[in-house]
Amino acid sequence: MSSTGARAVALLSGGLDSCVGLAIAVSRHGPRVAALHAGYGQRTAARELESTLAIANHYDLETRRTLDLTWLRDMGGSSLTDTPLPVPETSEGDGVPTTYVPFRNAILLAAAVAWAEVLGAGEIYCGAHAVDSAYPDTQPAFFAAFDEVVRQGTPKITRIQVRTPLLELDKAAIIRRGQDLGAPLHLTWSCYERQDRPCQRCHSCHLRARGFAAVGITDPIAASKD
Amino acid sequence: MSSTGARAVALLSGGLDSCVGLAIAVSRHGPRVAALHAGYGQRTAARELESTLAIANHYDLETRRTLDLTWLRDMGGSSLTDTPLPVPETSEGDGVPTTYVPFRNAILLAAAVAWAEVLGAGEIYCGAHAVDSAYPDTQPAFFAAFDEVVRQGTPKITRIQVRTPLLELDKAAIIRRGQDLGAPLHLTWSCYERQDRPCQRCHSCHLRARGFAAVGITDPIAASKD
Repeated sequence: MSSTGARAVALLSGGLDSCVGLAIAVSRHGPRVAALHAGYGQRTAARELESTLAIANHYDLETRRTLDLTWLRDMGGSSLTDTPLPVPETSEGDGVPTTYVPFRNAILLAAAVAWAEVLGAGEIYCGAHAVDSAYPDTQPAFFAAFDEVVRQGTPKITRIQVRTPLLELDKAAIIRRGQDLGAPLHLTWSCYERQDRPCQRCHSCHLRARGFAAVGITDPIAASKD
Repeated sequence: MSSTGARAVALLSGGLDSCVGLAIAVSRHGPRVAALHAGYGQRTAARELESTLAIANHYDLETRRTLDLTWLRDMGGSSLTDTPLPVPETSEGDGVPTTYVPFRNAILLAAAVAWAEVLGAGEIYCGAHAVDSAYPDTQPAFFAAFDEVVRQGTPKITRIQVRTPLLELDKAAIIRRGQDLGAPLHLTWSCYERQDRPCQRCHSCHLRARGFAAVGITDPIAASKD
């Protein structure tokens, strides 16, 4: 319905995974990728937005949108947004981690579909990965079901595909993919807890450190502190 | 995760259909129904919120939430939110009407699921109906697909059902159902165009008028103007 020329919408959190997902989108469409970021009142919202904008600048993406979903924080139910709930350290044991934000990915994807419809974009890129994740809304079965909702819930002439190119990769493989594509990993932010420097204790820092160690390179964020 | 005691979340637009959907929810759960309303920058947002609150008051619903989704208007693509696009009059011809708001129902349902998860509510009530609607996101196949997304995208211990008790009813049958349940139809608002009095020209006014005529009673909103 619009003619911004965007071919795809990329969900960008400011983290490593969505940055590599964007790098894949850009490798296919150049800068005709629209960047969609959402703040939902998470502890590190400001830092994630900063990283998102830096990554969007890096790729010269003109079409950008930031959604205010702070009502997700107001609803509660996640240690990422409920400050009384501590962010768990390192491995999280069995079950769904407390960092799970209720149905967040469905909300983000639904918003991305709405925007893709308006832009006339045919793809949505999402950096979700299932290997290191115990979140239900990052699993292949969730995305398969969501595809059907998109097919049924949009006008028949609309063709929008949700792309999850990292779904079967572990963190090390995602980092390698990012390196191959020249993705600006130095601009990304992963820590759940702090905004000034990575806490190195939360699950997200732990996963990231393990990934860089497995690849055998220094995390550019860690390096920049020296 | 919370103990507000809500058994269900009802999506309330302030319109006739969602009011009757709520009446059904209340007939099953009493006032333990949480009211979820969203403003998305539509022309009649203020009037719809006013109606929603009046309906929630009528049923003594304590748990309420209004979501700010004005980014849907900012995205554009619908005559309900794009003021340059005229709201079409009466019958809309073939295809999806311009009043379709891209993927709105998926966004609203996803938000309702998130809240139901936090509240520990097992049902979501949605007043959608497919008979008089050409919107893709009000059709049975959409809701069936969405059920699967909820099943896959929430933790295994979570059981949330989306209820659409009006899905197969036409407007006259919805009005009769509301009458049987004593639903406060006099508090509802349906007009897409005006907030002071129904325009009587838009598709939504047309459908409503046809429904009341078929039932053979006067619309209490029309009556109150006399």
